[in-house]
Amino acid sequence: MTGGDIQFDRQGRLRHLLTLEGLSRQTILEILDLAESFISVGEREIKKVPLLRGKTILNLFFESSTRTRTTFEIAGKRLSADVINLNVNASAASKGETLLDTVRNLEAMHTDLFVVRHAESGVAYLVASHVPAHVHVINAGDGSHAHPTQALLDAFTIRRHKRAFNNLKVAIVGDMLHSRVARSQIQVLTTLGVRDLRVVAPKTLLPLKVDRLGVRPFTDLHAGIEGVDVIIALRLQRERMHGALIPSAQEYFDLFGLTPERLALAKPDAIVMHPGPINRGLEIDSEVADGSQSVILSQVTNGIAVRMAVMALILGPSVEARSG
Amino acid sequence: MTGGDIQFDRQGRLRHLLTLEGLSRQTILEILDLAESFISVGEREIKKVPLLRGKTILNLFFESSTRTRTTFEIAGKRLSADVINLNVNASAASKGETLLDTVRNLEAMHTDLFVVRHAESGVAYLVASHVPAHVHVINAGDGSHAHPTQALLDAFTIRRHKRAFNNLKVAIVGDMLHSRVARSQIQVLTTLGVRDLRVVAPKTLLPLKVDRLGVRPFTDLHAGIEGVDVIIALRLQRERMHGALIPSAQEYFDLFGLTPERLALAKPDAIVMHPGPINRGLEIDSEVADGSQSVILSQVTNGIAVRMAVMALILGPSVEARSG
Amino acid sequence: MTGGDIQFDRQGRLRHLLTLEGLSRQTILEILDLAESFISVGEREIKKVPLLRGKTILNLFFESSTRTRTTFEIAGKRLSADVINLNVNASAASKGETLLDTVRNLEAMHTDLFVVRHAESGVAYLVASHVPAHVHVINAGDGSHAHPTQALLDAFTIRRHKRAFNNLKVAIVGDMLHSRVARSQIQVLTTLGVRDLRVVAPKTLLPLKVDRLGVRPFTDLHAGIEGVDVIIALRLQRERMHGALIPSAQEYFDLFGLTPERLALAKPDAIVMHPGPINRGLEIDSEVADGSQSVILSQVTNGIAVRMAVMALILGPSVEARSG
Repeated sequence: MTGGDIQFDRQGRLRHLLTLEGLSRQTILEILDLAESFISVGEREIKKVPLLRGKTILNLFFESSTRTRTTFEIAGKRLSADVINLNVNASAASKGETLLDTVRNLEAMHTDLFVVRHAESGVAYLVASHVPAHVHVINAGDGSHAHPTQALLDAFTIRRHKRAFNNLKVAIVGDMLHSRVARSQIQVLTTLGVRDLRVVAPKTLLPLKVDRLGVRPFTDLHAGIEGVDVIIALRLQRERMHGALIPSAQEYFDLFGLTPERLALAKPDAIVMHPGPINRGLEIDSEVADGSQSVILSQVTNGIAVRMAVMALILGPSVEARSG
Repeated sequence: MTGGDIQFDRQGRLRHLLTLEGLSRQTILEILDLAESFISVGEREIKKVPLLRGKTILNLFFESSTRTRTTFEIAGKRLSADVINLNVNASAASKGETLLDTVRNLEAMHTDLFVVRHAESGVAYLVASHVPAHVHVINAGDGSHAHPTQALLDAFTIRRHKRAFNNLKVAIVGDMLHSRVARSQIQVLTTLGVRDLRVVAPKTLLPLKVDRLGVRPFTDLHAGIEGVDVIIALRLQRERMHGALIPSAQEYFDLFGLTPERLALAKPDAIVMHPGPINRGLEIDSEVADGSQSVILSQVTNGIAVRMAVMALILGPSVEARSG
Repeated sequence: MTGGDIQFDRQGRLRHLLTLEGLSRQTILEILDLAESFISVGEREIKKVPLLRGKTILNLFFESSTRTRTTFEIAGKRLSADVINLNVNASAASKGETLLDTVRNLEAMHTDLFVVRHAESGVAYLVASHVPAHVHVINAGDGSHAHPTQALLDAFTIRRHKRAFNNLKVAIVGDMLHSRVARSQIQVLTTLGVRDLRVVAPKTLLPLKVDRLGVRPFTDLHAGIEGVDVIIALRLQRERMHGALIPSAQEYFDLFGLTPERLALAKPDAIVMHPGPINRGLEIDSEVADGSQSVILSQVTNGIAVRMAVMALILGPSVEARSG
C-alpha cells in the first residue's frame, strides 16, 4: 500500500475500490472475512441488514450490464441502502455533458457511493480522483483494466473450497489480452500467496511480457492445466472472432475449450470457475459447466456477499465503531 | 389438482403460479379472499405491510410491458419486498447466454420470486421446472398460453360486483385465438362455477373445437351478449390486421365493437370489463369504456390486491404460521 | 391565488405544483422554508425521514431526462416513499393507448403522486385536471411552458446567498423564447419582490412583448449584466443551431457566452447560476462554471431539498397535523 494511493484515506482505510493493485493481504482478507459474515444474510428468511440505511448508492453504468448491475443493486438493498440505477449511454452523454460534469452533478445530490462501469479503462479512477472526501467509488469494470469485485469473489470462492492459498496451483484459461477480470485475478491471487499461477491462451491473446505479472504462460492447454487445483475459464468476447486474433469458434474450442477429458488432467478435486456469462461450447463444454466440479453458480452467490462486504467496509460505520 | 403438477409442493401448497389449469376452486377462493384483505392496504394512508420484508422479487421481463411490470413492482413494494426490474431483451440475451443460464444466475443471487413475462408460450413453466425448491415463479404472461394473475383479478372483480358465480352469464368478446388472457379467464370462470360462458369472435379468431373448453362459441355479437351479466372485451392486437385474420379495424368495430346500443342487449346491470390497454373505437366505444357499467379501472385497482395475494400466498409465512 | 386554480384544494392548500403562476409569496416562502429544514437531511449519516412512508410516487417521464428523474427519485426515497420509474416513450404510447388512459390506469393503482415530464406544454395540467382528489401532480417540465421545481430551487439558492430579494438585480441570459425554466424563474422572482429583473438574449430568442412579464429585455450582454447580483445562464438547446435562430455556436459564445471578463461587469460578489447540464464554451466558459462565484452545484444539492419540500407539502400530513 502506497500512501499516495487514492484508494485509501489518510488513516489507511479503504475509501474506494478501483483496482486490487496495491491492496495488502490484510485488507483483502478483511473483505473476505466480512463477506463470510454476509453469506448467512442471503440464506435467512429476511435477507436484510440495516447497515447502510439512509445511504444513497448510484449504479452509474456507462456500459450496459444487467447482470453486474443487478448484483450491486441486490447487495445495496440487502444492506438497506437506497439504490438508484443510472444508465448514461443515452441521456446526459447525448446532451453533450462531460463525464465529470455528470459525476459532479450526481455527487451534489449527496450520493454516498458510485458503482461505476465504463467501456474505457481508467474511468473509475478518474471519477474517484475528483469526488470529495465523503463520496466513495467502486469500479464495476473499466475497459480491459480491472474488475476488482469479480476477482475478490473468485478468491473468496477458492478459499471456501480450498482453504490455504499458498500450495494451490491455479490456471486461468482464455483471452488474457483483453480481460480486466484476469488482470484483477492475478493481483489478488499473487497477493494471497498462490505461487503456481498459470495463464493459458493462444499466443495472440497473451500479453507481451506476461511473466512479469508473476504468472507462467502456457499456449498448450494440456500442459497448462495438468495437476492444477483450480481452473478459471475466461469469457471470450465474440467480437474477437471478427478480428484476426482467433481463427474460429470451433478451432478455439478444439484447442482451449474445457471438456471432461481435459478436466481429467487437473487434480481429481479441482474446481472449475467462470466469471459468466458462459458461452457453452466455446470456452467450456456444458458437461463441465454443469458438472460436479463446477462452482460457477457459487461464484454468483458469493458475489453478492463480497459486494456487500466491500460496500459495508467502505461506507459503513468504521471498524472501531462497529466493534466498540 | 394433479400431484405431479409443478405448481404445488408436496404438501399441496401453491409454489408457483403458471396457469390456472389444475387450480382447485378452493385455492382460487383462497387467493380471492386474501386479495380482499389487501384491498384495504391500497386505501390506507400508509400503503404498506411488512409481510415480505427482506424478500427479493425479480421482475424478469423478456417482453416489455410497462403497465404489467408496474403492477407487480407496486404489489411487491407494498408487501415491503425488494423489487428488482430486469429487462432482458437487450443485455444477457444479446450476449448469447441461454435463458436457463440467465435464470440460474439470477436465482444464485438468492432471488425468492421471479415474475416472468415472455413472448413465447411455456417460458414461465420452463423456468419453474428448473428452479430449486425455495424459488418461486409467477407467470406474468407467456405467449398466447396463460396470464393467470389477469384472469384472477377478473374473477375477483366479477365477484365484487356479482357475488355468486353459478348463475352468471358471461361473454368474452374478441380475439380468442391468440389471447392468453381469454384462456386463463375460461379456466378460472369454469372452475368457479360459471355455467353459461360464451366466447364471441369472428370465425377466423375462434380456436377450433373451442367448445371443448366448456364455452359456447358465437360469431354474432348480438346473440352472444344477449342477456349476459358480464361482458369481457379482449384487446385486439393491431398486428392481427396485417394478416388475413381481420379485414379492417372499421369492419371489426362494425361487427364486434362494444357500443352503447349493443350493451343494451345485456342485462341492465351488466358490467363491462377489459384487460387493457383499450383501443378506443376498435374493441370498445369510448362511451362504453367510460360509462357507468364499465369496471375497467376497478380491474386495475383489484389487480394490485390480487398480485399481492398471490405473492403473499406463495412467498409469505405458511397459513399455519400466519394464523398461529 | 384564484379560487378556481386547480393547483389548490378548497381549503386553499397546495394540491399540485404545475406552474408558479398564481402562487402567492406566502406559499413560495413556505416551500423555501420547508426546504431549508430538509437541507440537513442530505447532510446526515442517515439521509432519510419517514414522512412519506407507504406513499407511492410515480415518475412519469414521457421525455427522457435521467438527471431530473434522479433528483425526484432521490427526493422521494429520502422521504421514505416507494418510487416507481416509468418511461412511457416506447411502451404504452406505442400500444396506441391515449395519455389519459395511461394516467387513469396508473392512478387506479393508488398512486399518490405523479411527477410528470413531457415535451409538450400543458400535459402536467391536463393530467392534474383529470385525477381524483387524493392524487397529486408535480410538473417536472412541460414543453416550453414551466419547470416550477427548477425555478423554486433557483430562488432558494439565491436566498441562501443573498437573503432579501427586493434590492437584487438579476439577469437571465440565453434562450428566453423556448425556456420553460426562464418562464418559471421570472414568475418566482417577481413574486418574491425582485424589482430589477433582466433578460438578455439575441433578438431571435426574445419573446415578443417580453416586457409584459415584468422584465427588462437586453440584446447586449454587457449592458444586461452590468452591476447585477445574480446571473442565470440558460441552457442552449443545440437543436436551435440547425434552425435559423442562431448563426453558429461560436458566434453565440462570442456574443452571449459568460466569460471571466464579462462576469467582471457584474457586482464583485455576484453569483453565477445555470440549470444544467451546462454546455461548456457555449453558454458559459469553464473558468466561470468552475469559478468561485459559481453556485451551479449548490443548485443541484438544493434541488433535492426543494423537491422534498414540495412533495412533503403536497403529500405529507397537513400543517396542523405536523405542528400539532
